[in-house]
This record gives sequence, structure tokens and C-alpha cells, in this order.
Amino acid sequence: MILRREGQGWHARQEETYKDEPGGWAHVRRTVLFDSDRSRFQARYFAIAPGGCTDLEQHGHEHFVLVLDGVGEVTLGGKTSRLGPGDAVHVGPDVPHQFSNPGTEVFGILCVVDRERDRPRIVEPGGAAARLTRAP
Amino acid sequence: MILRREGQGWHARQEETYKDEPGGWAHVRRTVLFDSDRSRFQARYFAIAPGGCTDLEQHGHEHFVLVLDGVGEVTLGGKTSRLGPGDAVHVGPDVPHQFSNPGTEVFGILCVVDRERDRPRIVEPGGAAARLTRAP
Repeated sequence: MILRREGQGWHARQEETYKDEPGGWAHVRRTVLFDSDRSRFQARYFAIAPGGCTDLEQHGHEHFVLVLDGVGEVTLGGKTSRLGPGDAVHVGPDVPHQFSNPGTEVFGILCVVDRERDRPRIVEPGGAAARLTRAP
Repeated sequence: MILRREGQGWHARQEETYKDEPGGWAHVRRTVLFDSDRSRFQARYFAIAPGGCTDLEQHGHEHFVLVLDGVGEVTLGGKTSRLGPGDAVHVGPDVPHQFSNPGTEVFGILCVVDRERDRPRIVEPGGAAARLTRAP
């Protein structure tokens, strides 16, 4: 099956709310690109609008992230770095992380995760936990 | 950890041979972008040079493919379609598939798979098996 890219989205794929719960996140939409009960991973696309960000969070499962559109920032273990198209990020277990868009165009990232995974935990910005770079 | 895109590759990531075995493939290089023993998937990038192609093959595991660079073609179950940047492909179980580059620029695809998976089987071009669109 082929999913055609159309503008910022994909043909026949709906954008969804990033999360059902409120939190520190803003202006993020999620598109599920791959979710099969015959495979052990899921691939999602997150469109972070200008001024938006994902939650600062941590969890035991890992993320593989690849920037598809625009530029933005990632905060990993308390350190913030700029990201551009094609840059990839490996978020290790329990590393606090947040993706944000201080720019003026959409910052779009692909994020691959295990299909079975633990729930994220929100991290307090500025706290000691926010600076962890690996599992304690 | 951040992997910076540099030209057609990624900083500190080596291109490898696509496969150790000969076959119908040509002019393909592989870069492993994510492979962690804490996760159940792997993410690889395949750079298919002009005139190149992957093997026509099938296997029980699924592929999630996303075009990162250039344009090319995918043959899925005997039908060939053109692909461009951002287009995604879900290769279902046992569907014969082949990616090829009839153009003049590199055709670069991200391919995500289960870390534990069966070995691919080469498919005879033009045979009945090449036209399967789902598992028999």
C-alpha cells in the first residue's frame, strides 16, 4: 500500500490530536503512518506548528526520530540542540526529551516506537530529572 | 544522541554493502540509523544510485518505507508505481517488492523493520509469485 504525501499530510490519513490529556504541549498534530498488528513498531508523524512543542517527558521505551520538514529544536537531558531536515535523534530509555518549534514554518518529525510500550511521564522543567542523559 | 545529516549520509554513520549475497540488486548502499537491543525495530537508509535497484524479494515481515531523497519506483505485487519525497509504502507480509531508480539522482529511502525477522526470499521476475498482493 502506498501513502502519497500531499502538502503537509498524507492522502487518506487523518491528523489527530497529539494527546488526549492536557500538559506542557501545544500546537502539535499527530498522523499515524504505520500501525500493523503483524509488526512490533509504529511510525507516527508529528507536525509541530510555529510556537508549538511536545511535552517534556520521559519513558522506558526508546524513540527513533527523523526530521522530515523544517527546522526546530530538541531538548535531550537538559541540553537543547537545533535540528534540520534529515537529522535523526535516538532518545534513550528514560531520557527526558522535548521537541519544540521556535521558528515560523512547520517542524515535522517522524517518530518510530515499539508498538508495546510504557506510558510517558511528564517531567518538571528545570528539575534534576530534566537533566538526566541516561537511565538512573 | 543526535545523528546529523551530512550530504547524502549521516555524520559518524558508515555506509555498508546492501547485502553480502549477489542477486538481482545493483548500486545500493545501506546505512543503519537505529539498532538498539532495547527496542524491537531497526531503521535503515538505502541509497539507490541511478540505474540501481533492490532485489525483487518477499518475506513474512513487513516494511515501512518512507522516501527521503529523490524519486524512484516501487514494484509491489507486480504493479510498478512512481514515488517521490515523503511518499510512504507499507509492504505487507509476503508481498513481492522491489525499489528501483530509473532516474539521474540518488533515490534514498528509510526502511523500518522488526529487529527479529525472517530472511528474504528472492522472487523470479515475471513469475506468478511476483504478482501476489497479499499472503497466499
